[in-house]
Amino acid sequence: MTTVNDRSTVPGSHEADSGESNPQDPSVPLTDEEVFGAHEGGKLSIAPTAPLTSPRDLSIAYTPGVAEVSRAISGDETLAARYTWTQQLVAVVSDGTAVLGLGDIGPRASLPVMEGKSALFKTFAGLDSIPLVFDTTDVDEIVESLVRMRPSFGAVNLEDVAAPRCFELERRLIEALDCPVMHDDQHGTAVVTLAALRNACRVVGRELSSLRVVISGAGAAGVACAEILEAAGVGEVIVADSRGIIHSGRENLTPIKFELAERTNPRAITGGLTEALRGADALIGVSAGQIPENLIESMADDAIVFALSNPDPEIHPNVAAKHASVVATGRSDFPNQINNVLAFPGIFKGALQVGSRMISDRMKVAAAEAIAEVATDELAADRIVPSPLDPRVAPEVTAAVAKAAREDGVATA
Amino acid sequence: MTTVNDRSTVPGSHEADSGESNPQDPSVPLTDEEVFGAHEGGKLSIAPTAPLTSPRDLSIAYTPGVAEVSRAISGDETLAARYTWTQQLVAVVSDGTAVLGLGDIGPRASLPVMEGKSALFKTFAGLDSIPLVFDTTDVDEIVESLVRMRPSFGAVNLEDVAAPRCFELERRLIEALDCPVMHDDQHGTAVVTLAALRNACRVVGRELSSLRVVISGAGAAGVACAEILEAAGVGEVIVADSRGIIHSGRENLTPIKFELAERTNPRAITGGLTEALRGADALIGVSAGQIPENLIESMADDAIVFALSNPDPEIHPNVAAKHASVVATGRSDFPNQINNVLAFPGIFKGALQVGSRMISDRMKVAAAEAIAEVATDELAADRIVPSPLDPRVAPEVTAAVAKAAREDGVATA
Repeated sequence: MTTVNDRSTVPGSHEADSGESNPQDPSVPLTDEEVFGAHEGGKLSIAPTAPLTSPRDLSIAYTPGVAEVSRAISGDETLAARYTWTQQLVAVVSDGTAVLGLGDIGPRASLPVMEGKSALFKTFAGLDSIPLVFDTTDVDEIVESLVRMRPSFGAVNLEDVAAPRCFELERRLIEALDCPVMHDDQHGTAVVTLAALRNACRVVGRELSSLRVVISGAGAAGVACAEILEAAGVGEVIVADSRGIIHSGRENLTPIKFELAERTNPRAITGGLTEALRGADALIGVSAGQIPENLIESMADDAIVFALSNPDPEIHPNVAAKHASVVATGRSDFPNQINNVLAFPGIFKGALQVGSRMISDRMKVAAAEAIAEVATDELAADRIVPSPLDPRVAPEVTAAVAKAAREDGVATA
Repeated sequence: MTTVNDRSTVPGSHEADSGESNPQDPSVPLTDEEVFGAHEGGKLSIAPTAPLTSPRDLSIAYTPGVAEVSRAISGDETLAARYTWTQQLVAVVSDGTAVLGLGDIGPRASLPVMEGKSALFKTFAGLDSIPLVFDTTDVDEIVESLVRMRPSFGAVNLEDVAAPRCFELERRLIEALDCPVMHDDQHGTAVVTLAALRNACRVVGRELSSLRVVISGAGAAGVACAEILEAAGVGEVIVADSRGIIHSGRENLTPIKFELAERTNPRAITGGLTEALRGADALIGVSAGQIPENLIESMADDAIVFALSNPDPEIHPNVAAKHASVVATGRSDFPNQINNVLAFPGIFKGALQVGSRMISDRMKVAAAEAIAEVATDELAADRIVPSPLDPRVAPEVTAAVAKAAREDGVATA
């Protein structure tokens, strides 16, 4: 999950003493003691939904009662969705190759992040989920294993898989599994970015359709942002990577970037960020690189700058604000935090609620609109997205995604 | 789980009205309404071990705090056992090919049983567990999938896999995974059977070492019972299947039965159950067949009869009791219920507690001794094993298994 990796908010994370301040004060640095103590024994727990304290409880939940339920499902497999936990169960799947800002640290080290993700699924959407981490980076092996275990879960949240393999893995899983599959580092980020861009447009009085947007970075988040912005009808999207603007005349493009070149940059601009940003309306930085102030200065009036790299934004938000009307980052210590947790709980909940076989572009765009809508009450240049803890968000996203799935014809329930 | 499939205790299970009796009274038949109602939405739920209600909670359990924990594990992978839930997590694995008495009903229909198993793990041993069911019966495919996901769990409980494939699957998993693996239908049953046999011996004043035991049935439970009785030093074990006594002169033996022939039946008796039972001290029925009364009559004085098939014991316990001093079944409506739940929670808990890499014979025998010990307070011919709900059992089994793992040199913690 790239957009919430904000280690710079814990300057004192290696000091074991937090002093005498209120430990719930977010400005008090986290201590190792506090963090590791909270992780002792892991962060998840399974519980039976009903107690098993009497012989009768056992007879109902286990034998002989359970045999009636198993028999019923064996006669009609669709009943598994009703009488097992799988219809509300998300497999949180990773190979540990792109964990936070830590990179390829392996499946075991990725587990605390996956457990955290499961905790968020439960907290914000009431969904159960289980971390399944793979000690292989072979796409075939991960896909075939999940296909074999398909009856065990209701959806797959891919997490922290390195680009470009993440694109193939997601595509292959979507083809192979008849259930919602989403790589959150791509689409969760893209959905919240679109929500933020919608509201930024409202603040500056613009329409998405007339907007010229530059995306800096063509990794997991950049590619997904380009896709959703096009699906939402943004006027012009240009993507730049470390070698400059992606256009169809460029040589040695990877398959993913070749596709990007086909779909974006309709005026076939060439060059680097300097050329791309001149006169542009919005910048979405998902590159981990730095962007000099004069390039922001060259953008159009009322520019929108999302500097989402973590822990170091592409440009300090205070500097960007000198030349832009709306500025967002991935960090919790500045206004307008673009945080995936606004999106994924409700997206999966909505998809599972209606038995959707996939998560379509329309469902993602609907999620973005729902997130944006929640923030409109108090809309301002420094309040374009809701707080990650806003309890209104997940139910609104759930409802919007379920509705969109029905409209798209991918719902089955 | 063969030994607790006792559908005959629910004669009214298809009647939707339980009348006005106390619903906690075990003699009141279960109703469909009650059973299916309790299964609605499944029987398991995931919960975060700590609430995520403030920005600080999020910072600790997710980013940025979690990065410190992931970084620590990436530097020392053994820390995953301490800072994730995996060290107390059992994967409950099935392919749905031998579910209760229902047979090969498939992975989806097996899920309610697996969820029930997970609920029992939590209730009796405080262990977390996740059902992982496979839509394949290919041993290679199941093994390689679990190997790939090895970092996700701490142990594997195999469940409801048909014989003889269950033997190969368990053996292959034990070889491939550096963690406890146990097929409960084999070894859970065997452990509780040994516990019951020990106490039956106490009741009739015999030693295991002088006992002649006949096992009727050479499926999952029969093979495992033969193994553990030998490991516990039982004097003579003879196994019979539907074709009669297994001996090394028999043709066309499967590999498993060939091994049985090598290890059991030292006097090389031939024939059928008639020959086997004549003068035998104990019968363990795990065959699903029927045994006529005159064969029980032909056994030695103070005979011990465990008629464990479900729902129909090999011989009605009241009939057996005419000729035997101790009688047990798998049913909850007769005395001396041989129920795996006495064994598996503590076995896995004990093994995980000391980081054992396997579940050795010594650990299984220790579990049996601990179960037997709990029942000695009130030992009687109709009280040779504790009640499945006796809260003393799992802690005693846990401690005994942990100790045995240390003595066996398979503990790592």
